[in-house]
Amino acid sequence: MNQPQQPDDMMPAIADVQSRRDDRDIAIDQVGIRGLRYPLMFVDADGVARSTVATCDVFVALPAEQKGTHMSRLVALLEDQLSASAEPLSVANFRRLLDDLVVRLGATSGRIAFAFPFFVRKTAPVSGVASLLDYEVRITGELDRGSYVHTLDVAAPVTSLCPCSKEISDYGAHSQRSVVRIVARPRAPLFIADLLRIGEEEASAELYGILKRADEKYVTERAYNNPRFVEDLVRNVAARLSGDARIAAFAVEAENFESIHNHSAFARIARGL
Amino acid sequence: MNQPQQPDDMMPAIADVQSRRDDRDIAIDQVGIRGLRYPLMFVDADGVARSTVATCDVFVALPAEQKGTHMSRLVALLEDQLSASAEPLSVANFRRLLDDLVVRLGATSGRIAFAFPFFVRKTAPVSGVASLLDYEVRITGELDRGSYVHTLDVAAPVTSLCPCSKEISDYGAHSQRSVVRIVARPRAPLFIADLLRIGEEEASAELYGILKRADEKYVTERAYNNPRFVEDLVRNVAARLSGDARIAAFAVEAENFESIHNHSAFARIARGL
Amino acid sequence: MNQPQQPDDMMPAIADVQSRRDDRDIAIDQVGIRGLRYPLMFVDADGVARSTVATCDVFVALPAEQKGTHMSRLVALLEDQLSASAEPLSVANFRRLLDDLVVRLGATSGRIAFAFPFFVRKTAPVSGVASLLDYEVRITGELDRGSYVHTLDVAAPVTSLCPCSKEISDYGAHSQRSVVRIVARPRAPLFIADLLRIGEEEASAELYGILKRADEKYVTERAYNNPRFVEDLVRNVAARLSGDARIAAFAVEAENFESIHNHSAFARIARGL
Amino acid sequence: MNQPQQPDDMMPAIADVQSRRDDRDIAIDQVGIRGLRYPLMFVDADGVARSTVATCDVFVALPAEQKGTHMSRLVALLEDQLSASAEPLSVANFRRLLDDLVVRLGATSGRIAFAFPFFVRKTAPVSGVASLLDYEVRITGELDRGSYVHTLDVAAPVTSLCPCSKEISDYGAHSQRSVVRIVARPRAPLFIADLLRIGEEEASAELYGILKRADEKYVTERAYNNPRFVEDLVRNVAARLSGDARIAAFAVEAENFESIHNHSAFARIARGL
Repeated sequence: MNQPQQPDDMMPAIADVQSRRDDRDIAIDQVGIRGLRYPLMFVDADGVARSTVATCDVFVALPAEQKGTHMSRLVALLEDQLSASAEPLSVANFRRLLDDLVVRLGATSGRIAFAFPFFVRKTAPVSGVASLLDYEVRITGELDRGSYVHTLDVAAPVTSLCPCSKEISDYGAHSQRSVVRIVARPRAPLFIADLLRIGEEEASAELYGILKRADEKYVTERAYNNPRFVEDLVRNVAARLSGDARIAAFAVEAENFESIHNHSAFARIARGL
Repeated sequence: MNQPQQPDDMMPAIADVQSRRDDRDIAIDQVGIRGLRYPLMFVDADGVARSTVATCDVFVALPAEQKGTHMSRLVALLEDQLSASAEPLSVANFRRLLDDLVVRLGATSGRIAFAFPFFVRKTAPVSGVASLLDYEVRITGELDRGSYVHTLDVAAPVTSLCPCSKEISDYGAHSQRSVVRIVARPRAPLFIADLLRIGEEEASAELYGILKRADEKYVTERAYNNPRFVEDLVRNVAARLSGDARIAAFAVEAENFESIHNHSAFARIARGL
Repeated sequence: MNQPQQPDDMMPAIADVQSRRDDRDIAIDQVGIRGLRYPLMFVDADGVARSTVATCDVFVALPAEQKGTHMSRLVALLEDQLSASAEPLSVANFRRLLDDLVVRLGATSGRIAFAFPFFVRKTAPVSGVASLLDYEVRITGELDRGSYVHTLDVAAPVTSLCPCSKEISDYGAHSQRSVVRIVARPRAPLFIADLLRIGEEEASAELYGILKRADEKYVTERAYNNPRFVEDLVRNVAARLSGDARIAAFAVEAENFESIHNHSAFARIARGL
Repeated sequence: MNQPQQPDDMMPAIADVQSRRDDRDIAIDQVGIRGLRYPLMFVDADGVARSTVATCDVFVALPAEQKGTHMSRLVALLEDQLSASAEPLSVANFRRLLDDLVVRLGATSGRIAFAFPFFVRKTAPVSGVASLLDYEVRITGELDRGSYVHTLDVAAPVTSLCPCSKEISDYGAHSQRSVVRIVARPRAPLFIADLLRIGEEEASAELYGILKRADEKYVTERAYNNPRFVEDLVRNVAARLSGDARIAAFAVEAENFESIHNHSAFARIARGL
């Protein structure tokens, strides 16, 4: 567990308190660093490496007999794995971080989570004007005695329009921004962009950075033609995810930032998570 | 400035570092405590004392020749002024905090700001069902060599419905939750509830905790009949505030959490602030 | 499920869209309101009812055949259960909310979570000066076909002082604010204050609103005499919780907002959660 | 003001509501988009272009006679000015955004603010190990009838160690993470990195991503040898900024996330802002 051979720990005059024996006989599930921000090159479905900034959690399991972990090695892992010379990160190669982690720390298991804004260039539905849209994304990998699982967690901001408001009103219907969050544990290759599209397609309408007037007319009418309760959002997404052979387990949540209340409407369906 | 006569500072064996002379010859505009949470009894227009929780900033000016302020006295002020036995706080008696502050610290000027959720019992427009709505409020008082000014800062969550979307679409119109924020410096007695009403009345519709179906029909149609750009929100509120003899200076901001974008539309008008 | 007998839903001209049949055959785990703020009277170990402001989530399970829930009834539950005339809420009587919830909605299961600041009057260790300290607390109750479980989630802000820094340095040792979070599922009566004390007692030192100079000397020296890694914090708390017969399952997390880094050190131990 | 010659607005069948005449006779100080996230290439003192993600506010003044601004053009400005083919942004060329803004919108004045994490590769003081540290930065440019001013706003996280705690305690002294925030209006070329260094150099110690044990000993002892009140932090930084010929006006704030309290100590000095 202790690695005195590492040059940067070879300062013999300085005590290595963390490596000492601990007598409380309590193993620690996760110990490490949380909330460290780091620039990240990430590549998804389109094969293009894009820059973003990740907020990183890096944890290992600590055996009962060891007093502490070596936090600086966890940051060093990020320095090495996310450097300009490293291959851009993807869902497919995320495991390389975990493999490196358990070796550096001599740990039996570890967990790494990166949360970052993910940008997609979208095309407005009528004018065809292109603009970026930002999404919150989180990738989590866990390696436990050689067994690896990873989880994708994406949040798609969308429009929801209330079916009740539409039906009972003589004109109009309240709409609002909503977030559809999908957490998926893949059993086959799966892209971030795939999950985001499912969330967007099942909403009353999807969002864009730029909408010209012809586009605004289109999305307004589309939302009015596709009213969705928060219940509809999670049911429709759940149906899509349940039928997707690439997905072993999932949870879907929708939150409507109600335009007629100062609280949210919320729904959640989980299957296997 | 130093007050060795205070019993709780009379521990002669312990050095009073803060009271020492400072030689840098730099006066400090504001020094004190920030972000301290405290229970608060507050009374507004309806005369009813209500409980809430404030996040408190308490600052004094520090003269060039003094090394530091005595932070514990600032917390003691809150303990005394906000205790169960103290008169409930109001906009009208907020100055008592400042008067006490400058005496306790021997300061020439001070500044206190309390931010807290403020609850109003509202009645749904058709059913008459009552429910609370929460608003973010901030009161700031400043006392400078005996001259006192205070500022009210309120945020009313409302519905906005887009005039452009309504006009160009064959049916429907996108709406969303918005916040109308009003900062006002009164020259005559003014209640928190007065400012919140102005913000709500100038929106496409106002929000409620509980809406039965007849109410939802009402607010949906009201919003459709009263489309407002973010520009309209701030202009209409500014017109109201400009014409209010109680208000010496103001700023109004509106932010629409657009339901068709993942960013906000924002507008601001300031007069005298 | 639909309750047409309720007067406020008896507006026959207005369609009840939520009560319609849904054909997708997908039950929803949780649906309801999120993030609604409400004033709360809460009583804990000392038997004193205190005012605070809760952020409330109220959810029910929705059967596959029903299109939507009736959100307004969830807010009405808060109006009734948290009104001035209602008995103050406590960990012991929290279940009353759940019992009411499933009846109002005709649901088989429900979940309610209230998060709120909780204030404890503490006495400074030497001077004896009293002041409030604020803690973040969350109570969650779940009722599933008559079976009730509840969870307490408390966060105690504390001081941590680094054992490594102390040992390797000729003088001084870096300290910082930390948060010890305890999530516990009780099997016997348990107070919020009990869990907070455990978190505070196992830290290098505990926090206070007011510390006079004699107190500051005391807590400084106490922290130096009790260095704790983030690993020590969670191990010591886990040992206490494991040995507490009132607790069926728990998780403890500690996060140190490191004063020598711009990220946190974090550790977690879960047993049965 | 209205620009019907722009192809993407040339959809004659669709009304241009925003361009209509407004009769309220109230000019709007700022109207536009807030909170839009966008990838950014930024270059500072070292001449290296680095990727980050900005949160963008883009506003124009709106004359009294115009009903609304054209929000989509503000996003289009970001699309064009921050695209991969555009020259990386810097403090020196930030004005190009404002010049483009007023032309696109036909406005007399505008304001653009970009807030983003800024990364500096630092070298640990003894081991020489390199690692990134993240800082929060904001650049604001304002153009008013051809007159341009810009403001830099940087936040350096640092260590503060309490002089009082050190002096009155037999051993140890409480330290904590603090943030030194500097807002500067330059009159001559000035880099982000310059301001951050001033904030770091005046603290008890500076932060690093990676510290080996020899480094931790160094920063612990350095902080103990350099105790600083929050008052000292702002005075020392103010003295540096006052004496810097490149700076026309400034404000400096320091906030200590006290390790012995659950609130912050705060101080502020402003000169000319």
